Amino acid sequence: MAQHAIERVSANKSFGGWVSRFTHYSEVLDCDMTFGIYLPPQAEEERVPLLWWLSGLTCTDENFMQKAGAQKLAAELGIAIICPDTSPRGTDLPGEHERFDFGSGAGFYVNATREPWSRHYRMYDYVTRELPELIREHFPLNGREAISGHSMGGHGALVCALRQPGRYVSVSAFSPVCHPVNCPWGEQAFSHYLGDDRALWAEYDACALIRAGTSRQPLLVEQGEDDNFLDEQLQPGELERTCQECDHELTLNYRPGYDHSYFFVASFIDDHLRYHARYLQAE
Amino acid sequence: MAQHAIERVSANKSFGGWVSRFTHYSEVLDCDMTFGIYLPPQAEEERVPLLWWLSGLTCTDENFMQKAGAQKLAAELGIAIICPDTSPRGTDLPGEHERFDFGSGAGFYVNATREPWSRHYRMYDYVTRELPELIREHFPLNGREAISGHSMGGHGALVCALRQPGRYVSVSAFSPVCHPVNCPWGEQAFSHYLGDDRALWAEYDACALIRAGTSRQPLLVEQGEDDNFLDEQLQPGELERTCQECDHELTLNYRPGYDHSYFFVASFIDDHLRYHARYLQAE
Repeated sequence: MAQHAIERVSANKSFGGWVSRFTHYSEVLDCDMTFGIYLPPQAEEERVPLLWWLSGLTCTDENFMQKAGAQKLAAELGIAIICPDTSPRGTDLPGEHERFDFGSGAGFYVNATREPWSRHYRMYDYVTRELPELIREHFPLNGREAISGHSMGGHGALVCALRQPGRYVSVSAFSPVCHPVNCPWGEQAFSHYLGDDRALWAEYDACALIRAGTSRQPLLVEQGEDDNFLDEQLQPGELERTCQECDHELTLNYRPGYDHSYFFVASFIDDHLRYHARYLQAE
Repeated sequence: MAQHAIERVSANKSFGGWVSRFTHYSEVLDCDMTFGIYLPPQAEEERVPLLWWLSGLTCTDENFMQKAGAQKLAAELGIAIICPDTSPRGTDLPGEHERFDFGSGAGFYVNATREPWSRHYRMYDYVTRELPELIREHFPLNGREAISGHSMGGHGALVCALRQPGRYVSVSAFSPVCHPVNCPWGEQAFSHYLGDDRALWAEYDACALIRAGTSRQPLLVEQGEDDNFLDEQLQPGELERTCQECDHELTLNYRPGYDHSYFFVASFIDDHLRYHARYLQAE
């Protein structure tokens, strides 16, 4: 297989490792994309495991690297972290840049089937197929991968893991959109990207996927109790109910006083890194 | 003394404490200002010590709180952190918003004496007098204060401490502008704010203040070796030489591979918090 070109945009030393940003042409999305990757110091000597981090609405590849404070423990544990962007970039489809919850910065990790979105908005294939192949070519990774994310990216992490049993050794999410087929953000995005076919919507809904029963991988979810989006958009109660009814293992930590921000993510990211490390480093 | 009003803009729970932003009218600067403060969980029960963080060029009160990852250890140690803004805001003086190294976002922690800057640009008095009085009225602080900062703010921290012996229990700096009277950033700013009087410039120059010998407080300085601004703007070698000649205690840590970014600050902020904690918590 031919090497796919990537170009380094920046590199910052961080806790003995490196936070780097790269651009590349994405065939799946038909546009240039940027991603960030943290390589811990161990990556200079050996191949390391990888945590995928999928970000939320309005974010780019940079938010997590700058705000989550994950590098310190990732360096200790020897875990690489990759942060894809949240949508295709550099395109200008009708209405693409008008709303924060749809279009640019809001790809929702689905493969759009409806024109004009289907030309570019294929973030599910990008984060599960094209980008993984690309980074395996370029970085010293050992093939063990976990996945997590925040808000829209928490939804993405749950969906990526539930749809691909065995693909990630562990999955977690912060403040995920648990039931997008039945909340305003999800309805807005899915109706544009996927049209009217509700059966297709269900393929990108954590609760529906749990009911479908394809995967029985345990879920770890962190949720701030003072999150402004809790009841209307995120609906962790629906996830809890679904997991109970389907006997799907779920650890759902409600955190009093915490909101939807990266201050919340930073406060608990070390717990999640240690959780993933147990699976990533299992013999 | 009458209570000076402050208005809360936001509050985010962070490691059991709170990152909050407040606005207030500054008499010294004659404009509305915003600052950020982190109160650790201990502040709900008792008065806590305080670390001042002065930020660098182009920053606001938000950069450190979002990017330095200091809250985790500050919560453990029970230290509050205050982040002032880096210049007056909401004003529109000629040329104020044209350059990144002068005017808005670049107050350099001096009291301007030259028109029109002297009407607003009095950041030294703001961070050493007005803002300290204000926060003592509003927050559960115990009166023990340390100071640190980055780049232009590292310069500010060194100058604030060296000019006021005994005022801060400890002082440190990341990538400070060590000798502003003799570097392009400093010359640009000081000539506008202070005019031609080089004796006045010397009152805001760490190396000149060490030679003047007002304070003999030990200095802790962190410096990335791959910092783009190292030789032309920051000149830690000049600080080292001055401290040697004047027998002024300096710990200057050069860090190979690190640059000028907050990824560098984050990598070593815990070392500085522990350093300040030893002084802030001394019996």
